[in-house]
Amino acid sequence: MQSEDTRPRSRDIGLRIGTLPTGKQNAITDVAGVMVGQTTLIAGDGPLIPGHGPVRTGVTVILPHAGNLYRDKVPAAIHIINGFGKCMGQEQVDELGTLESPIALTGTMNVGLVTDAIVAWSIRENPDVGIDASTVNPVVGECSDAWLNDMQGRHVREEHVLAAIASASAGPVAEGTIGAGVGMTAFGYKGGIGTSSRVMPAHLGGWTVGVLVLANFGRRDQLVIDGVPIGRILAAEDDVPERGSIMMIVATDAPLLDRGLRRLARRAGIGLARTGSIAGNGSGDYVIAFSASPSVRIPYEPLTPTIQVELMIDTDKPIDALFQATVEATEEAIVNALFRATTVVGRDGNTREALPIERVTELLRAAGRLDNAVEPSQ
Amino acid sequence: MQSEDTRPRSRDIGLRIGTLPTGKQNAITDVAGVMVGQTTLIAGDGPLIPGHGPVRTGVTVILPHAGNLYRDKVPAAIHIINGFGKCMGQEQVDELGTLESPIALTGTMNVGLVTDAIVAWSIRENPDVGIDASTVNPVVGECSDAWLNDMQGRHVREEHVLAAIASASAGPVAEGTIGAGVGMTAFGYKGGIGTSSRVMPAHLGGWTVGVLVLANFGRRDQLVIDGVPIGRILAAEDDVPERGSIMMIVATDAPLLDRGLRRLARRAGIGLARTGSIAGNGSGDYVIAFSASPSVRIPYEPLTPTIQVELMIDTDKPIDALFQATVEATEEAIVNALFRATTVVGRDGNTREALPIERVTELLRAAGRLDNAVEPSQ
Amino acid sequence: MQSEDTRPRSRDIGLRIGTLPTGKQNAITDVAGVMVGQTTLIAGDGPLIPGHGPVRTGVTVILPHAGNLYRDKVPAAIHIINGFGKCMGQEQVDELGTLESPIALTGTMNVGLVTDAIVAWSIRENPDVGIDASTVNPVVGECSDAWLNDMQGRHVREEHVLAAIASASAGPVAEGTIGAGVGMTAFGYKGGIGTSSRVMPAHLGGWTVGVLVLANFGRRDQLVIDGVPIGRILAAEDDVPERGSIMMIVATDAPLLDRGLRRLARRAGIGLARTGSIAGNGSGDYVIAFSASPSVRIPYEPLTPTIQVELMIDTDKPIDALFQATVEATEEAIVNALFRATTVVGRDGNTREALPIERVTELLRAAGRLDNAVEPSQ
Amino acid sequence: MQSEDTRPRSRDIGLRIGTLPTGKQNAITDVAGVMVGQTTLIAGDGPLIPGHGPVRTGVTVILPHAGNLYRDKVPAAIHIINGFGKCMGQEQVDELGTLESPIALTGTMNVGLVTDAIVAWSIRENPDVGIDASTVNPVVGECSDAWLNDMQGRHVREEHVLAAIASASAGPVAEGTIGAGVGMTAFGYKGGIGTSSRVMPAHLGGWTVGVLVLANFGRRDQLVIDGVPIGRILAAEDDVPERGSIMMIVATDAPLLDRGLRRLARRAGIGLARTGSIAGNGSGDYVIAFSASPSVRIPYEPLTPTIQVELMIDTDKPIDALFQATVEATEEAIVNALFRATTVVGRDGNTREALPIERVTELLRAAGRLDNAVEPSQ
Repeated sequence: MQSEDTRPRSRDIGLRIGTLPTGKQNAITDVAGVMVGQTTLIAGDGPLIPGHGPVRTGVTVILPHAGNLYRDKVPAAIHIINGFGKCMGQEQVDELGTLESPIALTGTMNVGLVTDAIVAWSIRENPDVGIDASTVNPVVGECSDAWLNDMQGRHVREEHVLAAIASASAGPVAEGTIGAGVGMTAFGYKGGIGTSSRVMPAHLGGWTVGVLVLANFGRRDQLVIDGVPIGRILAAEDDVPERGSIMMIVATDAPLLDRGLRRLARRAGIGLARTGSIAGNGSGDYVIAFSASPSVRIPYEPLTPTIQVELMIDTDKPIDALFQATVEATEEAIVNALFRATTVVGRDGNTREALPIERVTELLRAAGRLDNAVEPSQ
Repeated sequence: MQSEDTRPRSRDIGLRIGTLPTGKQNAITDVAGVMVGQTTLIAGDGPLIPGHGPVRTGVTVILPHAGNLYRDKVPAAIHIINGFGKCMGQEQVDELGTLESPIALTGTMNVGLVTDAIVAWSIRENPDVGIDASTVNPVVGECSDAWLNDMQGRHVREEHVLAAIASASAGPVAEGTIGAGVGMTAFGYKGGIGTSSRVMPAHLGGWTVGVLVLANFGRRDQLVIDGVPIGRILAAEDDVPERGSIMMIVATDAPLLDRGLRRLARRAGIGLARTGSIAGNGSGDYVIAFSASPSVRIPYEPLTPTIQVELMIDTDKPIDALFQATVEATEEAIVNALFRATTVVGRDGNTREALPIERVTELLRAAGRLDNAVEPSQ
Repeated sequence: MQSEDTRPRSRDIGLRIGTLPTGKQNAITDVAGVMVGQTTLIAGDGPLIPGHGPVRTGVTVILPHAGNLYRDKVPAAIHIINGFGKCMGQEQVDELGTLESPIALTGTMNVGLVTDAIVAWSIRENPDVGIDASTVNPVVGECSDAWLNDMQGRHVREEHVLAAIASASAGPVAEGTIGAGVGMTAFGYKGGIGTSSRVMPAHLGGWTVGVLVLANFGRRDQLVIDGVPIGRILAAEDDVPERGSIMMIVATDAPLLDRGLRRLARRAGIGLARTGSIAGNGSGDYVIAFSASPSVRIPYEPLTPTIQVELMIDTDKPIDALFQATVEATEEAIVNALFRATTVVGRDGNTREALPIERVTELLRAAGRLDNAVEPSQ
Repeated sequence: MQSEDTRPRSRDIGLRIGTLPTGKQNAITDVAGVMVGQTTLIAGDGPLIPGHGPVRTGVTVILPHAGNLYRDKVPAAIHIINGFGKCMGQEQVDELGTLESPIALTGTMNVGLVTDAIVAWSIRENPDVGIDASTVNPVVGECSDAWLNDMQGRHVREEHVLAAIASASAGPVAEGTIGAGVGMTAFGYKGGIGTSSRVMPAHLGGWTVGVLVLANFGRRDQLVIDGVPIGRILAAEDDVPERGSIMMIVATDAPLLDRGLRRLARRAGIGLARTGSIAGNGSGDYVIAFSASPSVRIPYEPLTPTIQVELMIDTDKPIDALFQATVEATEEAIVNALFRATTVVGRDGNTREALPIERVTELLRAAGRLDNAVEPSQ
């Protein structure tokens, strides 16, 4: 078994999903200002003792910028592909078109406590919240880590969320079996956190789209990598219905408001579709998109009823490039989650094997998908 | 029977719905740039000969500004309270947040031909439409004039729509039995076109909201005027289920984009609720809202992917004043439709009586609603 | 100051909102099977010590039936009038059209912990949740009790939620300053919990609609009771922008699925509009509707892919009666919340006065609204 | 150039998209009761004379059953992937969850006249429509045939729509350059009408899903066939932004109501994504889904407020099989449109070449996608 450190990302084996160049780190943090932090919780082994362990869970947070998110909100939109899931705070984002807290991702049953932790953090950052200021709208998404984790234990607590936020940085993003990704399964293999980015041509705006996913969906036989139906070849008899989910976070520095971001969010679903997902009955598939562009920031208490914004509008070529960037980065982020995730043995000895990269590489090569010359990232 | 010319508007008898001041004309045309045009079709008497008459129908058009609407689009949103109706073009307004044609209102079965007429007009204004330029998205709403009109005849044709647009002006708006309102029924009385406006306090932005309605809904016993359950008193036994509808057009010069306009549009439903509507099963209740503010105009083919806009944001006091203006203007526009509409005898001798204004005045006075001193419009 | 026990409900002073008869208790529990439980938290006095008190908050739970909600789901829909608020679990109700847990209402910042408590309860009732069975979707709504309560303290804990559920019963429902209603303000007066019901004519189905509200919205000058603009008369100078919210729960035994329930839910907004609400910018106005009819119950794990249901369809007269029942019961539930709520002194000595019932009675009598003979409830 | 009669469908060259078996005809008409009719309009050559020709357009109609659609409605849902397009009648389908007319597809600017033609047809079938009965809700979708056709001429008239309906049959469906497909372009090649179907395993219900598409979207370089990026290889320099659209009709005999059908409709978007679409800015991408199952038929005027229905519910395995069927049939329907469409020379000599099938076959074979043994259709 390869350790996570030595497992390649999909580009490392020569795979080139799409045609647009990636950003420097090929990560959501290529969007200026965006930061990611994660807390990983792994404890205990053996039989499940509900409420006690074993623990295979965690939390991943995404911060749209390093300033005061509550005072300096970012435009946002949430798109639901299949709503068999939860995203705390969705309706207020829909109504006001803004995000005013970190986005947190975690295991399903942790949503309540993680929501409460984000409230606690917001109070610390803004001691007037809920006293003289309005309340805060935490945005918390989830996927189920039931198969590996003692989910009934709701092991992600306030200190874990605060630690994730405190550790958030703009650098490279750890992928795979980490943070909220610890207990996740995708296409019958170990899933988890993945990320990727794309940069639009300069004459169309030159903006960046970065995507981070928490991948926890798909039956083995459904897996498609860059168009190659890998899953049908790899699938042993695998008649378990899909019960997983995926949370996709789309960040951009293109100056979009909520409507434009909703359009962008929908395109993440296209990237998802290309990996083989059918958005199964039991899969909660959500996209949270935001713009980190300073030119569309929304102040908490403006002195005047209007503000000046510089707004990207719906012109074919720039918008299509932005859409394409979103599709490509989403598809690659999911593939990266699979590539980077390591095998995990969880509760009751339940084991989720890592994607067999050598075999996958072979299959991709046979299908002619690794032949492209390696182009450098931007 | 009073002729339309002599029937008062609701303010003329001393009624004061709400507390904000009206614009100069107490009409949707108080919003700078907005123009209204109407074509009235009345022909024939006696028994219905399907496809031939009698004719009691028409078309009303609202133009957001006097320029080229296709080249210089306005932000817009459509809110559906009860979708038992039709609004051609709704989805594109939803997707792009813009309006690029006049809004046309007409009888239900005319929607196809009126849509086609708006296409014809758009081609005339922009000869490249559908050749080198994109296609055009007509927005056409409807209510059923079945009880008075030979609706199967679809009598509103291209020339009538073109005439309505040609006659559009920014002046006072004719109400009642006119344009699309000819064959309409509201609360068991003659309904049709009504309008009203409100002006926000200067320190909250000073913007204007104007509303125009095509009122064709409600059972007699449901009618409420300024809180007084007039209908219960006036209702003879009247067990006809509501099958009507209402189209509400909300214009403002507040610089809102689609999301803000959708919020505004929802508040028109509150004004509607106050007149006694329950949004009955068969009632198609739609709100089309747009901003005529030049600072949020969307160009057809911008030279750059971004534009500068001055945008009203969601601050409590200004937004609440705007909401209140919408609620009040909608409620009054509906009441004005009833006040101004004259009795119409239609197909098969079907007769729709005008609201008995003297009796209504009496009832309102008895309830203490005409006691306020008459304040002048702004 | 009247104690809550002696304050009348609106019918006790002779007010008759609408025309349909109420159920036996004029409460949401008139819908067969529906149970309500509440936990009230009042502790401490004097200056706010954030995180410590004073405490003026609580939780109210509504159970659609007495059986296993997770195994025997009820059709449901959530309608959002203004989404400046939170309703945990909304998207899954939207996707699957079912409710599988009690509905909990509480103060805004308690949403995380109350969600977690509902998860805990669901695990207790169904020990396989999140292990062999799917996860559970708690539905938790909120309004802000910031003005009276130490909201930062998030004082509603698991034991309080479990106690509320344990105490739930089908009998009369306590209103006003109780459960989630303890810290609420409506129209500048003490708000909180209110309820009402209506019964449809037997020849249209004879079904019952019951509504329970958590009322926490509205400026004083906006208050309208049965059409009479009480608020304009009562309002002292009161320029506080509306920052409240309302959660409305609509229960019925009419056999509706999600689409029909969504239509019903929208009509609660009409009842709300009639009390004077403009659905202000900062008001989170939500409606949660469900059918308690056994003929549309959805089993957790059916043996076959289809089930037989007896379904109410969209025929004018029965549907309109159901809509009217919803409008009337919602309007009266809000008024009952105001009538029954007692004055509360909260954090920092902040005081919210109860509605002055004698004065209101006087004003309603002067407007001729108390003249009807008292008809008995069904 | 191959004539349409000799061009293969995708299965004829050995391509097997997905894993479920097709129905007998591999067409939407495999769903019992569903009928398709088409009218093709080709006239004139040479330079465009706006309003006169050349004509390259038509209309395709889909009838859910052979009975009276207005009296015997079918459950339906419309899902909008990108709303830069028009679908007359969408809102009423959304509100009531039913379809009561044939679905018509045509060129964009014909929507008004085709809507009017469906009204005319409905009147003929139900002479009380708009007199004693309610009005009718035509459902008319469109794609732009601007590049080949004199779209300003709106050449599809009432007689063409009536002829299409009159010719509708349950047999094999003509694909490619026919009906509404005459003037369409997909991935820079000739597009148009395509269809496919899938049959679910008997133990999961054994239901059929049939899809018909009007394909008019995509840039050449985006084209993916069964995972193989054919387009990147075929693409000459082709910087034309996507301005096309796609209408997808999904029929099933699974007994679903509107909510289930909306879920199904969303999965058509997944099939679309797999062909390389990014749902470009200018692409109106719509899905109209209906159930032809007699067990969920909705009568126009029921004698009682409730009906009995046998309803498929949301259980993982059957629903996932239904989703998979939809994904596969949609992907293949699009590919079939490309395979079957013949080269068309239109207005101004504009030429749209047919997909080069020999070259495509070669590329698919090289990628190993034609190796499967040919299994017979069900």
